Amino acid sequence: MKIAILGGTGEQGPGLALRLALAGEDVIIGSRAKEKADKVADELNAELGGKRIQGADNVQAAASAEIVMMTVPYSAHISTLEAVKTQLQGKIFIDVSVPLDPENPRRMKMPAAGSATEEAQQFLGADTKVVAAFQNVAAHILRDPKHHIDCDILVCGNDVEAKKVVIGLISKMGMKGYNVGTADSARVVEGLTSILIRLNIQNKVKGAGIRLTGLPE
Amino acid sequence: MKIAILGGTGEQGPGLALRLALAGEDVIIGSRAKEKADKVADELNAELGGKRIQGADNVQAAASAEIVMMTVPYSAHISTLEAVKTQLQGKIFIDVSVPLDPENPRRMKMPAAGSATEEAQQFLGADTKVVAAFQNVAAHILRDPKHHIDCDILVCGNDVEAKKVVIGLISKMGMKGYNVGTADSARVVEGLTSILIRLNIQNKVKGAGIRLTGLPE
Repeated sequence: MKIAILGGTGEQGPGLALRLALAGEDVIIGSRAKEKADKVADELNAELGGKRIQGADNVQAAASAEIVMMTVPYSAHISTLEAVKTQLQGKIFIDVSVPLDPENPRRMKMPAAGSATEEAQQFLGADTKVVAAFQNVAAHILRDPKHHIDCDILVCGNDVEAKKVVIGLISKMGMKGYNVGTADSARVVEGLTSILIRLNIQNKVKGAGIRLTGLPE
Repeated sequence: MKIAILGGTGEQGPGLALRLALAGEDVIIGSRAKEKADKVADELNAELGGKRIQGADNVQAAASAEIVMMTVPYSAHISTLEAVKTQLQGKIFIDVSVPLDPENPRRMKMPAAGSATEEAQQFLGADTKVVAAFQNVAAHILRDPKHHIDCDILVCGNDVEAKKVVIGLISKMGMKGYNVGTADSARVVEGLTSILIRLNIQNKVKGAGIRLTGLPE
């Protein structure tokens, strides 16, 4: 499957691109400037030992992919969505955004819609299937393919079939995804990120995550 | 320590009372009617093989305890707080409430304050130290002293010392408590409960819980 990662040169993007490429997916890293995306793609391809990840500008990346993921900092959430709104129609859009308080990342500053995911769904309209995922897994763990990921992926959104596709992708990437409800569950899923950041700071570590327990394998 | 559990005859109360009594604490189960509280206390004492848990009405329970916990259904949240507001002044108040949507427990219906915990803190005033805890651990697991608890306890509130006391109690009860921030983190902590209920329904189980990972022991 052709999967774009908009804002893919940032913190969470390269690790997601790497894990997706290793799972056999066709990955396009998007950035505002194509050159920046190409540079990160080249670095990852060198590690992968072959040209498996492409670079593109965000609009081109969104246009050519079947599934579009976005990992821009929350400050660029709406402006990036504006740039690719047309290209996202009819597609699954995986929003990885976390509306952290710019003055204190241990707190959330939720948008009026309730969460970034709900905001994206409202902004993009019903023809784009917005799914939230990957907010709680640490960037440096994703980025190191030898690092075991001790973190479950909570997946939410209003379209059941789209969530199934995303949970399937997560499984191919070596993680376990759980359907945790409609888009409004993103208030909890996104909110967990600031709690994990707080625990990282408190404990002087970088890789706090969560696991669901008491469920069948 | 003398610990009261208001609304302690409901779902979460008896298990918490049992675990606290087994940890050596002095427990008072509160209910609107003392007889109902006495009945549950008698049942638990029979299991414990000795009179270690007392019954009382909510007001008496709150008055005589040093730490007060509350496990009433959310519909009785404010009315119960009103009844014991005076008795809670100067004390640690552990709010276990979860504002589930009465029409669908897989969703939250958060109060205007943001969460039950924030609502309680606003209502009780700064002299009561409100701490949120125990919302995510399954009632039937707490209730069975032989059942290992595979669930961490996320603890939040505005008073650091009060959180330390509660985390100490949790540890004595055989669980691990984590300070996850100020009272507004309860939006996530309480919200996780509806996600766990959803996962229980989806998977036809009763004991979904969460664990934090990537943190030092």
